[in-house]
Amino acid sequence: MVKIAVLGYGTVGSGVVEVLRTNQKVIDERLGEELRIKYVLDLRDFPDDPVQELITHDFEDIVNDDEVKIVVEVMGGIEPAYTFVKRSLEAGKSVATSNKALVAKHGAELLRTAKEKNVNFLFEASVGGGIPILRPLHSSLTGDVIEEITGILNGTTNYMMTKMFYEGADYDEVLEEAQDNGFAERNPEADVEGYDACRKIAILSSIISGKQVDFEDIYCEGITKITAEDMKYAKAMGMTIKLLATCKRDGGKLNAMVAPCLLRAEHPLFSVNGVFNSIFVHGNMLGDAMFYGSGAGKLPTASAVVGDIVEEARNLDRNLGVMWSSEKLTLEDRRDVERRFFVRVKGDREELQEQVAAVFGMVQFVQAEGLSGEFGFVTEEMPEGSYEEKAERFGGQILGMIRVEE
Amino acid sequence: MVKIAVLGYGTVGSGVVEVLRTNQKVIDERLGEELRIKYVLDLRDFPDDPVQELITHDFEDIVNDDEVKIVVEVMGGIEPAYTFVKRSLEAGKSVATSNKALVAKHGAELLRTAKEKNVNFLFEASVGGGIPILRPLHSSLTGDVIEEITGILNGTTNYMMTKMFYEGADYDEVLEEAQDNGFAERNPEADVEGYDACRKIAILSSIISGKQVDFEDIYCEGITKITAEDMKYAKAMGMTIKLLATCKRDGGKLNAMVAPCLLRAEHPLFSVNGVFNSIFVHGNMLGDAMFYGSGAGKLPTASAVVGDIVEEARNLDRNLGVMWSSEKLTLEDRRDVERRFFVRVKGDREELQEQVAAVFGMVQFVQAEGLSGEFGFVTEEMPEGSYEEKAERFGGQILGMIRVEE
Repeated sequence: MVKIAVLGYGTVGSGVVEVLRTNQKVIDERLGEELRIKYVLDLRDFPDDPVQELITHDFEDIVNDDEVKIVVEVMGGIEPAYTFVKRSLEAGKSVATSNKALVAKHGAELLRTAKEKNVNFLFEASVGGGIPILRPLHSSLTGDVIEEITGILNGTTNYMMTKMFYEGADYDEVLEEAQDNGFAERNPEADVEGYDACRKIAILSSIISGKQVDFEDIYCEGITKITAEDMKYAKAMGMTIKLLATCKRDGGKLNAMVAPCLLRAEHPLFSVNGVFNSIFVHGNMLGDAMFYGSGAGKLPTASAVVGDIVEEARNLDRNLGVMWSSEKLTLEDRRDVERRFFVRVKGDREELQEQVAAVFGMVQFVQAEGLSGEFGFVTEEMPEGSYEEKAERFGGQILGMIRVEE
Repeated sequence: MVKIAVLGYGTVGSGVVEVLRTNQKVIDERLGEELRIKYVLDLRDFPDDPVQELITHDFEDIVNDDEVKIVVEVMGGIEPAYTFVKRSLEAGKSVATSNKALVAKHGAELLRTAKEKNVNFLFEASVGGGIPILRPLHSSLTGDVIEEITGILNGTTNYMMTKMFYEGADYDEVLEEAQDNGFAERNPEADVEGYDACRKIAILSSIISGKQVDFEDIYCEGITKITAEDMKYAKAMGMTIKLLATCKRDGGKLNAMVAPCLLRAEHPLFSVNGVFNSIFVHGNMLGDAMFYGSGAGKLPTASAVVGDIVEEARNLDRNLGVMWSSEKLTLEDRRDVERRFFVRVKGDREELQEQVAAVFGMVQFVQAEGLSGEFGFVTEEMPEGSYEEKAERFGGQILGMIRVEE
């Protein structure tokens, strides 16, 4: 029998307990032995819940119990999660976590500790919730150089972008609705400013580069400036706007970014709607692939955590060798990354088009239905630094810029 | 250093050599040691290809060489592939294969042999080409009871269905074009009759049930009867038609089928177009997930084979425990499976609608643009046996029936 402890009986923690109980029989069969929860750590008591008999308020009970082989950290936040995870690994216990903040900040170090102790530190649920992506990258796509990962990694903002696209609604309207439906927090900053997606793409970038990519180094732009007018232009071009988190190889360098982008209808991520997440991967041999599913939610996230627990139970005393060193990776400067830019300009196109051409060179003009007193255009491919320099030089009034994802 | 042998220098075999050579450096890094090809078995010589120095015409060279730890079977067909794979496993070598016919027929037995010899038999490339699906099922979705797998598992037929949907072309036209473009064989039977998809869903059904599902037991209907008119009805209903291979849990039983099905626009498989494949998975905890990518092609398939090789090289002398016993699974009778049916009828709707209602009960009538002298309707959900009995009883002339995938 393999005994485990769950740290935190919140949304994900109670989901983990539910998954293990509901599917106990098949999980035991797959593992070839019984997998049972010995402790659930929480500050609270749950007198009306059968979990109460497993509740402890003291982490020392867990870390000092040699019977506990796997610790499941689903508390969230950096502390005390970091200390508990570190001490569990040092005590020779494997750890599974859904905590993206912890992994983005301390992943490399905790992986090293796990390796030293010949146990495992797995965190599938920290990126893309229920979608299997980290283990496929580590165990399946090993014949490939991964040249690109581009994901819709935040369900709240994708729900909002979907509403804005299909219903023509404006940002404030959809945010309010998302909050009323429970799809967005009352303080939505972590989602709408892109911080959540940024931590996830930092983890993915670290995994595919094998080095430390700090989320603070990744350019991060949220969706707060996207308007109903922007969506009209997108539609006029047969495109949509999605909050993308992306990481690409460009020669010897890696660039990474979180930003709302224009996406053509043929892109596999175009039709990923609502709260679903999806991760597009391009390998130099594999070509295009995509992984789609519920990026959040109690049971999908818990399903991914339990997948990690089973993998760890199958590999007690055997490190699976996930590589991610503490050596810091310097990302390519955002200003050197080449792409096309969609630009919205206030004024009359007839009057301004010569000025646009003089500054931006060849562009494609776009007129959106029902919008007057303004127009849009898409530039040729150029480094973002060049775009910025041109935008500054341009005398007209630029209302907004959105990057085009090819 | 881990030494391997490749059986067959055809499309996939030369792809495997190319992947290993192109990505040699990263593969060695991930593995932590060098992975090198010692032999390539082929009846032919390749005097102008650097592979020539590795060519042997004699399988005995390989099976008797203790240095060879992994054998890669990419010859296709049942014999001599089966004999070579069996003897390699018995000699204590792991085997990776892309051969769906071999796996569908002998998978359970070869997995047992691998287990007895404490080596591995992996076959990721046999289903969905480059798409990682078998290892995610085995290593990631282990907390779930998989309740459904529905896939677009054949690129040729999906290319044809896509053309028929978007261009309104008829079957013979798109088949000819697919043949001219090299997307369909001159003898297209294995694709268009659904045989290829059938072997793949048999493998997936075996994997999720842990028992032997024989492809001969799976009801298999190809796309040869799908017409431009059918697509018009699909469009009128806001749906499309795809060749689906599906396996579902229904109470204690499993049902499986390959058939063209009507698919609503909200289904994740709706927008999988062209030669791409995609596999939709529903887990009782995970909810909906989908895996998308190139289902065939030299390099994507080779990429999946190399992923298996690396996994085997990491696990020499350690069986990964893929479960699939030889015990035969009896599938649910097709006639007991409940669904809705779209029916096309020759004649005048006004005249026949009472007769339709008398036999089929409540139905939704469908009129497609530009079609006269016929009409369509969709039944309520009913067992396929009931549908067949009603269709026989119905006096009118039924032009065709297509199942509706919900």
